[in-house]
Amino acid sequence: MMATGWSIVESPFRVERAKAYEGLFTLGSGYLHIRGSLEEHLSGAPQNVSYTRMPANVTSETFPDTKVKWGTYVPGIFGRHPLLNNEMINLPWFLGMAPILDGERLDMERCRILDYRRELRLDTATLRRTFRWQTRRGAEVAVMFERFVSAARGHLCVQRMTLGAKADVDVIVEAGLDADVRTNGYDHFREASLGFAAPNGIDCRVRTDAGDEIEMATRVAAPGAAWRYEAAARAARLAAGLRLRAGDTLCVEKRTAVATSRDRRAAAPADVLREAEGLSFEALHGEHADAWRRRWATCDVGIEGDEASQRAMRASLFHLLRAHVPDDPRVAIDAKGYAGEAYWGRYFWDTEMFLLPFYLYTDPARARTLADFRVQSLDGAIANATRYGYRGARYAWESDSAGRECCPNWQYADHEVHVTADVVYGLVHYARAAGGAGYLRGPAARVLVETARYWQERIDRLPPGPCANLLGVMGPDEYKPISNNNAYTNRMVSFALRAAAEVGEAAGAGVEECEHWRRLAGELPIPRADDGILILQCEGFDRFAEPDFERLWKDRRRTFAAQVSQERLYRSKCLKQADVLMMMALFPDEFREAEVRRAWAYYLPYTTHDSSLSAGVHAIVAARLGLADEAWEFWQQAKAIDLDIEHGRAAEGIHIANAGAVWQMAVFGFAGMRTAMQADVLTLSPRLPVAWSRLAFPVVWKGAAAYVDIEPDGVTVTNRGSRPLDVCVHGEPRTIPPGERALWKLGA
Amino acid sequence: MMATGWSIVESPFRVERAKAYEGLFTLGSGYLHIRGSLEEHLSGAPQNVSYTRMPANVTSETFPDTKVKWGTYVPGIFGRHPLLNNEMINLPWFLGMAPILDGERLDMERCRILDYRRELRLDTATLRRTFRWQTRRGAEVAVMFERFVSAARGHLCVQRMTLGAKADVDVIVEAGLDADVRTNGYDHFREASLGFAAPNGIDCRVRTDAGDEIEMATRVAAPGAAWRYEAAARAARLAAGLRLRAGDTLCVEKRTAVATSRDRRAAAPADVLREAEGLSFEALHGEHADAWRRRWATCDVGIEGDEASQRAMRASLFHLLRAHVPDDPRVAIDAKGYAGEAYWGRYFWDTEMFLLPFYLYTDPARARTLADFRVQSLDGAIANATRYGYRGARYAWESDSAGRECCPNWQYADHEVHVTADVVYGLVHYARAAGGAGYLRGPAARVLVETARYWQERIDRLPPGPCANLLGVMGPDEYKPISNNNAYTNRMVSFALRAAAEVGEAAGAGVEECEHWRRLAGELPIPRADDGILILQCEGFDRFAEPDFERLWKDRRRTFAAQVSQERLYRSKCLKQADVLMMMALFPDEFREAEVRRAWAYYLPYTTHDSSLSAGVHAIVAARLGLADEAWEFWQQAKAIDLDIEHGRAAEGIHIANAGAVWQMAVFGFAGMRTAMQADVLTLSPRLPVAWSRLAFPVVWKGAAAYVDIEPDGVTVTNRGSRPLDVCVHGEPRTIPPGERALWKLGA
Repeated sequence: MMATGWSIVESPFRVERAKAYEGLFTLGSGYLHIRGSLEEHLSGAPQNVSYTRMPANVTSETFPDTKVKWGTYVPGIFGRHPLLNNEMINLPWFLGMAPILDGERLDMERCRILDYRRELRLDTATLRRTFRWQTRRGAEVAVMFERFVSAARGHLCVQRMTLGAKADVDVIVEAGLDADVRTNGYDHFREASLGFAAPNGIDCRVRTDAGDEIEMATRVAAPGAAWRYEAAARAARLAAGLRLRAGDTLCVEKRTAVATSRDRRAAAPADVLREAEGLSFEALHGEHADAWRRRWATCDVGIEGDEASQRAMRASLFHLLRAHVPDDPRVAIDAKGYAGEAYWGRYFWDTEMFLLPFYLYTDPARARTLADFRVQSLDGAIANATRYGYRGARYAWESDSAGRECCPNWQYADHEVHVTADVVYGLVHYARAAGGAGYLRGPAARVLVETARYWQERIDRLPPGPCANLLGVMGPDEYKPISNNNAYTNRMVSFALRAAAEVGEAAGAGVEECEHWRRLAGELPIPRADDGILILQCEGFDRFAEPDFERLWKDRRRTFAAQVSQERLYRSKCLKQADVLMMMALFPDEFREAEVRRAWAYYLPYTTHDSSLSAGVHAIVAARLGLADEAWEFWQQAKAIDLDIEHGRAAEGIHIANAGAVWQMAVFGFAGMRTAMQADVLTLSPRLPVAWSRLAFPVVWKGAAAYVDIEPDGVTVTNRGSRPLDVCVHGEPRTIPPGERALWKLGA
Repeated sequence: MMATGWSIVESPFRVERAKAYEGLFTLGSGYLHIRGSLEEHLSGAPQNVSYTRMPANVTSETFPDTKVKWGTYVPGIFGRHPLLNNEMINLPWFLGMAPILDGERLDMERCRILDYRRELRLDTATLRRTFRWQTRRGAEVAVMFERFVSAARGHLCVQRMTLGAKADVDVIVEAGLDADVRTNGYDHFREASLGFAAPNGIDCRVRTDAGDEIEMATRVAAPGAAWRYEAAARAARLAAGLRLRAGDTLCVEKRTAVATSRDRRAAAPADVLREAEGLSFEALHGEHADAWRRRWATCDVGIEGDEASQRAMRASLFHLLRAHVPDDPRVAIDAKGYAGEAYWGRYFWDTEMFLLPFYLYTDPARARTLADFRVQSLDGAIANATRYGYRGARYAWESDSAGRECCPNWQYADHEVHVTADVVYGLVHYARAAGGAGYLRGPAARVLVETARYWQERIDRLPPGPCANLLGVMGPDEYKPISNNNAYTNRMVSFALRAAAEVGEAAGAGVEECEHWRRLAGELPIPRADDGILILQCEGFDRFAEPDFERLWKDRRRTFAAQVSQERLYRSKCLKQADVLMMMALFPDEFREAEVRRAWAYYLPYTTHDSSLSAGVHAIVAARLGLADEAWEFWQQAKAIDLDIEHGRAAEGIHIANAGAVWQMAVFGFAGMRTAMQADVLTLSPRLPVAWSRLAFPVVWKGAAAYVDIEPDGVTVTNRGSRPLDVCVHGEPRTIPPGERALWKLGA
């Protein structure tokens, strides 16, 4: 497979891009994540500024204009923000490490820096920065910083700074730990204590406002260094003076271990460090890189003929691999992929609809923890329903780890109810693709039953007639906040009600109850225009105003929402993202091609794509419709979102759902693979973009491993499993024996 | 006229009612208002507690559970709350005055108090409290507190404490001024300084966060007292020890003057005090009482046969007279009548629809300042429109004195646009009833034109056809936040557009522009049900859910909104208040009786009356429909709102719009008077409640003064003006010569 496309390079340093690279260069082990901030930091960018972040529409929100933003996250560590409810807490920053040469402190803005190059190696999840530094005193030093968060020891971060001098130079090395940080401008720490772990360490302990204890231990090593401890308010550092001789190289290594009172398997940070004590940087990096290689083997999507696409794909997969927390169903993957605070570290419908499929078809064990997350947070969902005055369970639009609704904006929290059905769709998807029916009758059954009980009360029957209605809902298109019978929502709720009826008795539901759910499922309408072909996004969609983009949307690089009042959004036909098309992408067999084409033609001109979730769905639908140019255009838009350094789109975190959509565009769109919700056997209908000469990826289909290799003139599927595998390509079924491959030739 | 019904009495003291009496016993001169707090205060009720009041639906909001709440307000003094925008600032509290007898401090909860009686005299706007106090040392002292805010000298508040002892007793008298207060839990003072004005005064100066300076000067006088000054943090007091001999009486007088940097005619507080120096308490009270007598003569509504109704009417008129700021069009009357902070001292549509009529038909000069308020705040309304992306002017749902939108909840601020048309309705009402057409072509013309320009852009024409639509609006019923073509709103906007077209050219609008407004006015639909008789509150009203009050509204003493989720309110047919009926009350000639009866029958069962604006409108419509029982029932509800001490409904301020509705119920409802918007001559169709033997009131009709006297068997109208007056009673027109009266006999 393509050897290129394995790295992302920043060169030269430009301060206005620093925050975007911080997001994009976030490293993590699942357990621990840290944004790609510069070790020596920048001056004039304090990280302890308190401000009041207010409830707002994040899509059009303006974030504080700071040069850089530190971020250290352990999934599941939440605290209460006074206005915004529970949010993931930004933990103390432990990356700090800076050389002072002949009295001059390293600073990317102030110092004379040559040949700056920072590279994120996607294959080994390693960040390395190299440059030459010419000091004001005339010395020139080659500097290299390396870091990785160990995939083999998830609580450990390893850093190294290497200095090579052409002439003698006095060096002071500083390495610190800073607990004086904020989360969205708010201070969540009730206590913070730091101390000297002689001779070369700092120990830090903070207690959050939710009562969690965070412990960090950092140790620094450099040949011949005698470290002195310098304490500041809620911060500390070690400093040592050294003499670097011409031609010599100085290596300073810093290792930090993190633990929290919420850890399932408690290990003191000092123990984590001790266990690694005998291992060199190279040895630790070796085991880390091996772990990453194994992960890539499960999922790498090869794209030939288009290096930009290949790189974008791998950047997406990198963050998908990083952001998943292994073996911990108490958390899922937050909307910014643990790389920023914009969405408060919360879990959205993104989990089921945009993220889950990637894991399902590459690493089902990881998919399981995401499914289990919803099972374990059922109590939170029941509490939400109770608070709203309903029986049953109501999943949060913005969930914390306990499932509690945290969204501070009522229009989403109150009305964007489809998430509760999306959760069920995800559980059923997991069961069909990997977990088996037993999962639904077992762990997931209560979720299905309790959410069905919620729907039963949430559905209104309006006279005359027995027709069920979901009134006052917001669909995926968040610019229609309170609409009736949103097609997507109704379809998903019908699905969820039927699924619940299937397993209801396993969770104590009565036969009549299940029968009632089936009846409601059958009654929920999908609204249509008078022509019978156009599916309406909701009842009365034709009674919204024309959005008049021509006049009102002057700057197309910024969202429409940022340029008009919310009031206008809410009364106009403008869509934030795919809504009817999203439904059609999920239920492809239920809509005739004429209906899909009609929906495409009708909604696309109204769609702003203000949401990063929009382009991916459009690319998939376009690919399926054979709209090659449109599919390619949306692919280009979607793949670039976090790599769009110019517009700083990763500054506040990774659009992790879009990363999942990048994988889906390739696999469900261009490879035309049907999900286990849409087909019983592995089914492909490839439509390669003309720029691509090859698209290849591994897939796990209901427990069977396979490898799909698509070229313009043929598709090869290798059965990597131990049983015969049924595969259907462009309607032509074959059975592939274990270990063998089959080729489908494609006509010119 | 009835000599009873002129006072409200509290007896005995009950701490759980203290806050409601504070609201109800608010005194004011228009310029200065102060809640009816106890001079000596209560222990355990600190007034400097900071808390964060969050945006919420005030109707269902829970306020801090404190025993009492001080409130000192000067209309127009606004400051910025960090979450809630501009709010009226609660100023330093200057009422403090307490006796300490034999070492025991007066405290209504802790001391032995007999014969407690506090009376608000409505005729003279004087608050007087009397009780006997038996100290722990065995002394018994008769105590009287009196206070009034001078109607003759609006910046001056006069207080007196009188102690009469049966046996010798040591007295310490304290009198203070406390600047350590909060507004809705927030501290708006940037500076506060207090100082001793020897020998017997305290001077206080605070600067608000908006930069306004507030000055207060307080002087205390008691025979033989030597005052010592005691300073505390942001507070100060004077104290003096005295000996009260058996049979003697001690009078302590306290006078406080207030001025602000925003005053139109600046007068230093010390000067205000100096000017009054030669006048005794009685003399000051005399001129104050005279001023109130003159005011009552313009508006007193006499009700015979039902003292409770009489008292409630006068309580309403009292607060209407108090809360109006004379000669200052920079402010209007806030939603709590300057008697509390619940609605942040802001101005709502209440001004035009509920308050203006009372002033229009009793004291047109006061009505003029309310009309002028909208004229002078036009720039704020233009700024609002600009911020929302529109040309023209858009009046604020919650306005500060500059007209800026301050509502922190977007559903109201963004969608409750009818206020902009209500303002125009008010201006036209003022012109027709008092100001003359010149007012519209003169000062008000720009308001009419600029608001029409806003509507022109806010209105959407949907294909097919030329039909104009107002999409995404909230009508008076705030439980339908985003609806299309709300009947009330459309009707009011049509009215406003036509009014603008009439005067457009006077304010520089083109002929075509005016023509366009007329066309839009004609196109805005009033939605109807299929039967052609039922006016729909908005399009698709029949697509809301049944509210199921039976099951969900358990406690009818509390609002429905407080017992269900907002989400359920927003998708259900429940109404907060009259909406279609409000329109019908304003435009009685446009709807057939069958239509009004149908609307009444259809909407009433769905109406929660959660809003205090609801009952009054219902009473008027019921009276006109001849639904005597229903009219009486709604009268009973509405008249009692602020007098409902049991439920503490005045605790957070006076429902001043309802006070205006109380007047309207009597005059427009039971007397059946048509407004100048509804008739050219004074027109009455009295329908007295059976409990009333008489209803009589003065009225100013287009500059002509008249007196209406209704008894069961006849109506007498006296022409108090200098020209013949045309009057029509029950369809029978007469012309009454100046100074004469006419009698219409009513059949049994």
